[in-house]
Amino acid sequence: MRDKSTEIPPGYQESLETVDYIGAPLNTPEMKFFTRIGPLQAFLNEQRIAGKSIGLVPTMGALHRGHMSLIEASQENGDFTVSSLFVNPTQFNDPGDLERYPRDLDTDKLLLEKAGCQVLFAPDTREMYARQSQVRFDFGQFDKILEGKYRPGHFSGVALVVSKLFNIVRPDSAYFGRKDFQQFKIISIINDDLNFGIKLHCRPTVREVDGLAMSSRNLRLSADGRNHATTLYRNLLSARQSLLDGISWSQVRAEVEENFRSSAGVQLEYFELADSATLSTEVKDLTKGILLVAAIVGPVRLIDNLPIA
Amino acid sequence: MRDKSTEIPPGYQESLETVDYIGAPLNTPEMKFFTRIGPLQAFLNEQRIAGKSIGLVPTMGALHRGHMSLIEASQENGDFTVSSLFVNPTQFNDPGDLERYPRDLDTDKLLLEKAGCQVLFAPDTREMYARQSQVRFDFGQFDKILEGKYRPGHFSGVALVVSKLFNIVRPDSAYFGRKDFQQFKIISIINDDLNFGIKLHCRPTVREVDGLAMSSRNLRLSADGRNHATTLYRNLLSARQSLLDGISWSQVRAEVEENFRSSAGVQLEYFELADSATLSTEVKDLTKGILLVAAIVGPVRLIDNLPIA
Repeated sequence: MRDKSTEIPPGYQESLETVDYIGAPLNTPEMKFFTRIGPLQAFLNEQRIAGKSIGLVPTMGALHRGHMSLIEASQENGDFTVSSLFVNPTQFNDPGDLERYPRDLDTDKLLLEKAGCQVLFAPDTREMYARQSQVRFDFGQFDKILEGKYRPGHFSGVALVVSKLFNIVRPDSAYFGRKDFQQFKIISIINDDLNFGIKLHCRPTVREVDGLAMSSRNLRLSADGRNHATTLYRNLLSARQSLLDGISWSQVRAEVEENFRSSAGVQLEYFELADSATLSTEVKDLTKGILLVAAIVGPVRLIDNLPIA
Repeated sequence: MRDKSTEIPPGYQESLETVDYIGAPLNTPEMKFFTRIGPLQAFLNEQRIAGKSIGLVPTMGALHRGHMSLIEASQENGDFTVSSLFVNPTQFNDPGDLERYPRDLDTDKLLLEKAGCQVLFAPDTREMYARQSQVRFDFGQFDKILEGKYRPGHFSGVALVVSKLFNIVRPDSAYFGRKDFQQFKIISIINDDLNFGIKLHCRPTVREVDGLAMSSRNLRLSADGRNHATTLYRNLLSARQSLLDGISWSQVRAEVEENFRSSAGVQLEYFELADSATLSTEVKDLTKGILLVAAIVGPVRLIDNLPIA
């Protein structure tokens, strides 16, 4: 296998096309803004009685085109779109990461309004956590591997805040990005096991022109770090191609790890091939496999993934 | 302290009065019966749109006057009352207990209809658990003590099925019996932490004339066992009186344990004094204490409790 990590790999444009961003429509810039649960619920009840289908796009703000593609998907489905903006402390295992997480409410508001989002719900921590939470979630194998291994408690915090948002908003549909693939699995489990009955949408990752997955944390990359960060996606693409060419996973992984070792400024945490249904690393059917990567670039931890088929 | 466990203790009639059963009204015997989630939800949506407030009374069937008092509380609050009947396998740590749990759907239906219950939801296991659940709940200290210590996994199963029922029915109010005091705590945590926003009612334990707490499992007691079973409540009453008389908890507990040792056919599992808010056994304010007991009588495990004030 050639080291494809230093060149634009084949299939690259094709991948971009499937996730291309469609410009936000310039429709009526009118959006309701709530910070409290009670008034939000009263307003949403009116919409429900008026027969509207409610779509929820949960975010932690610092919005990028990935988020906007979720708003658009909700709009295209004809949902009355509610976006939530809450930097959820219980899902941050690293207090420094929480503190440094990018925040820009004013810009976020403008972006959402421009995209036709009908409601923004931006509660503060006291509104979401009126008292110390006492419940923790456990997902067996699902939250012990990949992100769960490196971020203990992370998925319990995700499950908690998403359960809160599901109960507060009672959406018909909810929209998530595929970049956080394991998170989407966890949310699907919650939705099924607790009978929320919400239609969940997992939308393709939106990428920069050089392939870097959009992420709010990209804002914290230095100019050099921004260049190094492309290593993740380039290796996902090259590993996928190698696997499709019949090269064994152990060989592919060894080569990817060597690529990362020789890449300046990028420290690999994991690079795994997993079954996209079970997240098990015993992949019997390659076409159902997904490659997942996490790496540290300067002060930022980045993740990405790529389905084989 | 006298051994009060062999006589009808003072204050006994008073206790009974506060929980006396008011006969079920003989109103229109018309009740909707559902076994499937979809049709139930469609019907309940109609009721909601018609402005009705929905009250949920979750049961495992084999209904007794304790259950009926919950239906009545819901009716008195003006709720459109939905009772669920589901023997939830995930909360049984003992498969034998699950297998032998009393079941009598026909009688239950008649009782509910007579009490004016508007909807009975009695799904089968496949409807409630369409696939193997993958989420487990952890409540820190709350599910490691008392019942949690003797029934590992029990409260995770309770939290799971109650979350399902809350999401399926979306009630405004839900009614539970105080006999399962720790269960009510766990459900309160779920309701708060996950923002279900349901008004929870904890109703007084209903008792037989000799003080035995009503329980579906009482049906499985032999004639002798039925007599022995009164030991639980008699010791709760005598222990409460002793504590109010200023006797120390260590002395009271020692005497209760001696009472149980000398009572034929009753095997004590625990007898604890706990803070009714935190369930901590460090009780600083006796007026906020609650006595909790579990004991085995023949083939049946019984629980009961009594607040001090």
